[in-house]
Amino acid sequence: MEKIRIGIVGYGNIGRGVEKAICRNDDMELKAVFTRRDPSSVKIATEDAVVKSFDEMLSMKDEIDVMMLCGGSATDLPVMGPQVVENFNIIDSFDTHAKIPAYFENVDKSAKSGGNIGIISVGWDPGMFSLNRLYAESILVQGSTYTFWGKGVSQGHSDAIRRIEGVKNAIQYTVPIEEAVDRVRTGSEPQLTTREKHLRDCYVVAEEGADKEAIEQAIKTMPNYFDEYDTTVTFITEEELKANHSKMPHGGFVIRTGETGTDGNKHVIEYSLKLDSNPEFTASVLVAYARAAYRLSRTGECGARTVFDIAPALLSQKTPEELRASIL
Amino acid sequence: MEKIRIGIVGYGNIGRGVEKAICRNDDMELKAVFTRRDPSSVKIATEDAVVKSFDEMLSMKDEIDVMMLCGGSATDLPVMGPQVVENFNIIDSFDTHAKIPAYFENVDKSAKSGGNIGIISVGWDPGMFSLNRLYAESILVQGSTYTFWGKGVSQGHSDAIRRIEGVKNAIQYTVPIEEAVDRVRTGSEPQLTTREKHLRDCYVVAEEGADKEAIEQAIKTMPNYFDEYDTTVTFITEEELKANHSKMPHGGFVIRTGETGTDGNKHVIEYSLKLDSNPEFTASVLVAYARAAYRLSRTGECGARTVFDIAPALLSQKTPEELRASIL
Repeated sequence: MEKIRIGIVGYGNIGRGVEKAICRNDDMELKAVFTRRDPSSVKIATEDAVVKSFDEMLSMKDEIDVMMLCGGSATDLPVMGPQVVENFNIIDSFDTHAKIPAYFENVDKSAKSGGNIGIISVGWDPGMFSLNRLYAESILVQGSTYTFWGKGVSQGHSDAIRRIEGVKNAIQYTVPIEEAVDRVRTGSEPQLTTREKHLRDCYVVAEEGADKEAIEQAIKTMPNYFDEYDTTVTFITEEELKANHSKMPHGGFVIRTGETGTDGNKHVIEYSLKLDSNPEFTASVLVAYARAAYRLSRTGECGARTVFDIAPALLSQKTPEELRASIL
Repeated sequence: MEKIRIGIVGYGNIGRGVEKAICRNDDMELKAVFTRRDPSSVKIATEDAVVKSFDEMLSMKDEIDVMMLCGGSATDLPVMGPQVVENFNIIDSFDTHAKIPAYFENVDKSAKSGGNIGIISVGWDPGMFSLNRLYAESILVQGSTYTFWGKGVSQGHSDAIRRIEGVKNAIQYTVPIEEAVDRVRTGSEPQLTTREKHLRDCYVVAEEGADKEAIEQAIKTMPNYFDEYDTTVTFITEEELKANHSKMPHGGFVIRTGETGTDGNKHVIEYSLKLDSNPEFTASVLVAYARAAYRLSRTGECGARTVFDIAPALLSQKTPEELRASIL
């Protein structure tokens, strides 16, 4: 079997997750990792793949079918996406929801000029959660959709705590409030405030001699990040943080409830994820969509796509015949 | 706005559900219901639509964009699907899983000869459950998928009870066993027997003077239907049956658990439905896919399709731009 040849751009948590996910998909192989660091300083797990500098991508144009862009959404992807898709099919996990329309346009233009496919905003939210919002609201046209996140680590909120004076290290869990989830499941379509949907659970390592009360106060009143939530702050040691909080779990729920017909019949559609490792799961979604990008590109399609545009069968290693016979 | 013009073939529970679902979708209108009965004996809810005989379909070839085939899978659809798709785009809910491959081929051949689209096996299982099995196993390549059905009415099992001597009426609920669902959710990938996954809950109206013990015995030992399950039988009156068991609720769970990476990280993907009305929900899915059939047909595509082949965006009333801006 001819394998789908993958390149990874950026070797952080997601990049390493993609490398591991490729090992679990027989029809793929990793050809190269591209890094901004000194390539000789980056050790990867795949023996047959090479590590190269960002600037050397073009030298492998004929050896890579899909480039997995594993950079950040704030500064990396907005530049990198439109650039790389000029020469390669790309997958990324661009997740700044508000900027997706503009980013899509930029990737689309370059993808068409280069004759390549770019599937953007792949992962679980945006990604699988978005898909479930779409399916559910297309079926239950009148109704309400709710998304709950967690329990899981929010990198942005953890970083915000770490910037407070006297904080040595910190981790923040977003926790969905069970009572709210249960209310939604009844189909009553409640109006929920921010405070009613999630709480924020913080574990903080203070510097020696730091004013813990001031830190707790600074966290709980931080605008945008914490002030609209019920927040708990627990001070722990660096050792406890390493021992008990070094994993990156996450997950959540997409629930839509709505009515059909004329007799008040109600329905609940629920999709949920419980993930031990957010980056490894995200990477596994990216890899499935790499298969779709490869297939679309081989049929001559080009331009930007999102998960909304991809027929599900394109994600599977099974043929359409096998899918119809085995899991339809 | 030009509306999508729908025809309904067969006016049973699903057909009536489709009529109600059309009312909840602004971009659609019902043009005609086709029946095997005397058309003058069939009263429909839509004022502007007509009731015609099966044989008169062709007379409306230019007035209907998509035909919703609402007949049964046992004898109706195998004949009707390939016939009607010669002249119309069709949607159906063909649900005899084992016969889907052959049915697909038959519809595909006629659809291509007629230049139409036929989306088969649409609903929730096959349908939304199949989609979730596909997405989940494409992401978690190593893992196990479990489907639980219920609590819900199984028409086939209810009919089987009604055929027993001395039974006047009966209804059977398929009930997922909570302990099994919870075991699956732990990610332990248990091997579950038929008996461990579901139980069968029967409410039976006996004829006067009938031998209730014999009826209970006949149910519990019935091969294929009940013998491999724990089954409870409760005798009730016809009035109780009408009062408490005349709705058609259903639902269930698709759960896949699996591992990623090399550190034993586990993940749980769960999709569940809780439906007050099985036929109304099924009909709502059919109507969303009618939109996709219409759009595909307008771009010149033809042939048979399943939910696996349909890009999710095609189901929504929103444009791709609106979808990216609002729910991605």
